[in-house]
Amino acid sequence: MAESRNKARSRNIDNTGFGQNSSVEGGRLVNRDGTTNVKKRGLPFWQRVSFYHTLLRMKRSHFFLVIVLFYTAVNIIFAAIYFAIGVDHLSGISSSASLFDEVSAAFFFSSQTLTTVGYGHVAPHGFLTNLVASTESLLGILAFAVVTGLIYGRFSRPRAFLAFSDVMLIAPYKEGRALMLRLATYKNNHLTDAEAQLTLALHVTENGKVVTRFFPLPLEISKINSLALSWTLVHYITEDSPIYSYTAGELHHAKVEVIVYIKAFDDHFSNTVQQRTSYTHNQLVYGAKFLPMFERAADGDYTLLELDKIGAHELVELKEPVLT
Amino acid sequence: MAESRNKARSRNIDNTGFGQNSSVEGGRLVNRDGTTNVKKRGLPFWQRVSFYHTLLRMKRSHFFLVIVLFYTAVNIIFAAIYFAIGVDHLSGISSSASLFDEVSAAFFFSSQTLTTVGYGHVAPHGFLTNLVASTESLLGILAFAVVTGLIYGRFSRPRAFLAFSDVMLIAPYKEGRALMLRLATYKNNHLTDAEAQLTLALHVTENGKVVTRFFPLPLEISKINSLALSWTLVHYITEDSPIYSYTAGELHHAKVEVIVYIKAFDDHFSNTVQQRTSYTHNQLVYGAKFLPMFERAADGDYTLLELDKIGAHELVELKEPVLT
Amino acid sequence: MAESRNKARSRNIDNTGFGQNSSVEGGRLVNRDGTTNVKKRGLPFWQRVSFYHTLLRMKRSHFFLVIVLFYTAVNIIFAAIYFAIGVDHLSGISSSASLFDEVSAAFFFSSQTLTTVGYGHVAPHGFLTNLVASTESLLGILAFAVVTGLIYGRFSRPRAFLAFSDVMLIAPYKEGRALMLRLATYKNNHLTDAEAQLTLALHVTENGKVVTRFFPLPLEISKINSLALSWTLVHYITEDSPIYSYTAGELHHAKVEVIVYIKAFDDHFSNTVQQRTSYTHNQLVYGAKFLPMFERAADGDYTLLELDKIGAHELVELKEPVLT
Amino acid sequence: MAESRNKARSRNIDNTGFGQNSSVEGGRLVNRDGTTNVKKRGLPFWQRVSFYHTLLRMKRSHFFLVIVLFYTAVNIIFAAIYFAIGVDHLSGISSSASLFDEVSAAFFFSSQTLTTVGYGHVAPHGFLTNLVASTESLLGILAFAVVTGLIYGRFSRPRAFLAFSDVMLIAPYKEGRALMLRLATYKNNHLTDAEAQLTLALHVTENGKVVTRFFPLPLEISKINSLALSWTLVHYITEDSPIYSYTAGELHHAKVEVIVYIKAFDDHFSNTVQQRTSYTHNQLVYGAKFLPMFERAADGDYTLLELDKIGAHELVELKEPVLT
Repeated sequence: MAESRNKARSRNIDNTGFGQNSSVEGGRLVNRDGTTNVKKRGLPFWQRVSFYHTLLRMKRSHFFLVIVLFYTAVNIIFAAIYFAIGVDHLSGISSSASLFDEVSAAFFFSSQTLTTVGYGHVAPHGFLTNLVASTESLLGILAFAVVTGLIYGRFSRPRAFLAFSDVMLIAPYKEGRALMLRLATYKNNHLTDAEAQLTLALHVTENGKVVTRFFPLPLEISKINSLALSWTLVHYITEDSPIYSYTAGELHHAKVEVIVYIKAFDDHFSNTVQQRTSYTHNQLVYGAKFLPMFERAADGDYTLLELDKIGAHELVELKEPVLT
Repeated sequence: MAESRNKARSRNIDNTGFGQNSSVEGGRLVNRDGTTNVKKRGLPFWQRVSFYHTLLRMKRSHFFLVIVLFYTAVNIIFAAIYFAIGVDHLSGISSSASLFDEVSAAFFFSSQTLTTVGYGHVAPHGFLTNLVASTESLLGILAFAVVTGLIYGRFSRPRAFLAFSDVMLIAPYKEGRALMLRLATYKNNHLTDAEAQLTLALHVTENGKVVTRFFPLPLEISKINSLALSWTLVHYITEDSPIYSYTAGELHHAKVEVIVYIKAFDDHFSNTVQQRTSYTHNQLVYGAKFLPMFERAADGDYTLLELDKIGAHELVELKEPVLT
Repeated sequence: MAESRNKARSRNIDNTGFGQNSSVEGGRLVNRDGTTNVKKRGLPFWQRVSFYHTLLRMKRSHFFLVIVLFYTAVNIIFAAIYFAIGVDHLSGISSSASLFDEVSAAFFFSSQTLTTVGYGHVAPHGFLTNLVASTESLLGILAFAVVTGLIYGRFSRPRAFLAFSDVMLIAPYKEGRALMLRLATYKNNHLTDAEAQLTLALHVTENGKVVTRFFPLPLEISKINSLALSWTLVHYITEDSPIYSYTAGELHHAKVEVIVYIKAFDDHFSNTVQQRTSYTHNQLVYGAKFLPMFERAADGDYTLLELDKIGAHELVELKEPVLT
Repeated sequence: MAESRNKARSRNIDNTGFGQNSSVEGGRLVNRDGTTNVKKRGLPFWQRVSFYHTLLRMKRSHFFLVIVLFYTAVNIIFAAIYFAIGVDHLSGISSSASLFDEVSAAFFFSSQTLTTVGYGHVAPHGFLTNLVASTESLLGILAFAVVTGLIYGRFSRPRAFLAFSDVMLIAPYKEGRALMLRLATYKNNHLTDAEAQLTLALHVTENGKVVTRFFPLPLEISKINSLALSWTLVHYITEDSPIYSYTAGELHHAKVEVIVYIKAFDDHFSNTVQQRTSYTHNQLVYGAKFLPMFERAADGDYTLLELDKIGAHELVELKEPVLT
């Protein structure tokens, strides 16, 4: 398909970091959450994974589950050790206690040591039990240091907090058409000096083989001073555009993927933040335009940005390009 | 008003991130504290707000109030749980205690557990009470980790600590007039490579409709090596300036707003810091000049910067521009 | 050797930060781990070394060993102090205890104080013992603060996590030859805007003296948008290349060293990361090409990157350059 | 003096951030430690000072003194409160205790609460004492959070760790003279992409008034890839140099001050670091050259950098410029 459109194809770029040859590549390139669709192997798991990064990126509920499980596991291990040494070395445990009472006493003594709460109504006696308790309290302090670091790392991680429209549109623009998508910050953060970069991946047939070609998509405005309201990224489909000659059907057939990369400076973090996402051909609406998503507040004193309308669009007629 | 001043208007910019159409926009664009005058809705509160950012930016007194309230609330909740299980499972509480004594004993046992101080004169007995206490001490450690992170985040947040003059002036400058405003660092921090950027918002009538137009205001010096003393930002109002033909009255009528954006590198944080503010037409003094705010110290060994004079100005005669 | 190759030599650079004169310089310039092969003296050890940096960069096992040793040492010192004051000031120690029991009681009381676990079954009595215990608990809190900072500093330290091929190749490329080496991220991190810079060090004879000359090695692609897969750095050896006229033997004889410098932006840290390494002539394979290291996954949904193949290469015939 | 040297003077710059008019300015501009010689007033002390920055920059010994004093002061305050409520509400204090014993018991109970060590052999009784203890333990946790943040902030603060030669030289260079000064990193850190910028301040007489003029001093090499060894900054005094026509005596008379600004990227911190310093005319040696400060190690395997020789120089004859 499209074998003759050499003009556009000749301007493709090969510094995307993705391979050119789709025959060695699978599926979409970039996932919707901005991660790349690549898996790694050939190194042991623990070398291939940064636990810090994994713990930083996991869902909050999972993160706290990991902590609770770790806390329970460490207490069980130390309870077993105290039990093995003998609970008679833990003062304050009644000598007539049942097995369950002894086990739970060892467990709770462990938790009191690990958290350094150390009530003392149960206390270690004998060299060995004292040594284990001393080790456990050090471990508790170190574990706490790790948790403090992780929690701080989690909430201080610079993020752009950008919401994207769930679809990209081919909309009427000036005398012709434009590819449009919309974004906005959805938290009470403020981005300045925001830059956007769109890269198009086309799967085209060359010499009978399907290969992936990458093209930068120039934007009408690719840099704004302040991302206070919403921002509609507009790629005007001129004759120089790689998709100028593509019909709606051809775009789907070429499995277009648009990789979006936003970089900005965040006020709160005083740091550069970035966010990526990707739109596949399934998210393309041909012939539609976005509806407004901000308006003057009723009392006229401020502007109201309606985040639930970020993907709101209506279908419109689109003038097909005249191919020459 | 000013329908014929097409020259200036034609150079307006549309990458400010604010809408061009004042009919969908309300009030001033940027607040004096640098935040944008925009509210968001359409997402649940907890998705729309970054609690970390909110806790980082709130006033110090409010922040500590939040901590004290949280501490009290958690203790009340856990005291209720201990009370529900039965205070007889807390050793060290006299069996003849009054209800108030029992409740307060549960409350203070909770606080001793949460802070991990754990004196132990009151101690948990029985599986359930022990389990709750064990959970509370873990929660205490996690809460403490969060607080440590927040406190560190609060005072390590890179900030420019810039004071701005409370007014902007139209002052005599060279052969004509200039828009001036003044700033200085008011803390013992030091900024290098400071850059300033002024954007003017004019509300003008076009085709009978009031629209907002944005213009960059070029500065005589827009970048300095070191922000050691005060810095007066000077926009020389030449014939190319968007406000060249405006009289004092017209400036007010057009509801001019000057958005100030400062970016610099801070020594202490070794980080880029930035600060924004905005001046509305109410803060404009037409025909005035700033008074000096630094002088040689009495003993001649250093320079003295007087921060309370940052907005000090005196009225002066201003030559009106000759409109052609 | 190579006295006549003035053309290439005339373009050498002297802003590498290394001395030009190999007679005052020893061994390789940059070690494989990216550190420079320089030792410093002339200042006391404690002024010359940043303990924070040392503790940040040491192996994890060594780091935890340092903590355990520090913990033990502090406890021994304080145990000695408590013992010197008299263990009779520690309540809860049986008066009939043996010397060993007394010493270990002092030791474990110290550890309970340092970690602030404070069971209280052993407690300080008398002004002096109380004062020491009060000091030790403050020290414990400060030490813990340091450890928390170190642990956070260790795992939040921005790193590129790049694996490099263990060899560099002179491979066939276009009509001639190219110097190639390969790299990839081996963790679940993602780098964007990656830049590479190669500097060649040649030890050449000039006026009968061996001197070190530095040359930048231009790359076919020196910047990529996303380091999602592997990246092969390719220096095409054209007539302008400093090593155009060198045979395999001459390259070894000139003790070529290629210093690699990678700079990128990391998603997780939202920070610039960099990594350096160096290849000496012993790591040069003349006449070989890299084997592919990524492929479409069996189920076709993603791309599989095989990290153990990063240095995989096969020997190939190489056309010698025609020297004119 | 030097009234006729208009050529050089005409190229002076006014974006240094320092005032042009020396009559309103006192003493040197930048101190040797890189801080500016400016004091601020006109705002209350607590608004004018960033306590975080002050605590971050003070000497280590002072910092720990502040902590010990704060710890003692808080304990004295709380001891006074416990004493005022009545030490009989602290169980474990013998009823026959002397006043000194009671006071010290209150003090040490306070310290056990503040550090959360909470042995429990002294424990709070009664609502009021419990409430105070509960408050103190919360305060202890918050204070600890602050200390953790400060300690982390102190040792993670990106710093360049640059040593400068104690003098700047006018040395023979090429056919003429050059202003030289030398710097090196003195810790085990590594700087890349180092940039240097020299600014000269001359106090010259204009129209009978002494004014300060600033000039950039171009460097032979102003940017190096790696600051592995020492770096000698060289300003070649050509005819274009502002000090070309100055003799040794005139340089002293004009009270030359050279402000040095170094910016680099640090490997460990993965952050931009910078350092400033300043040389006054008292630190100028006219007619001298630096002695080498690095050499090949005895065993030839590495380069040895001798930090104590950073300012080492010997006097040499200098050809005076021919003034035309």
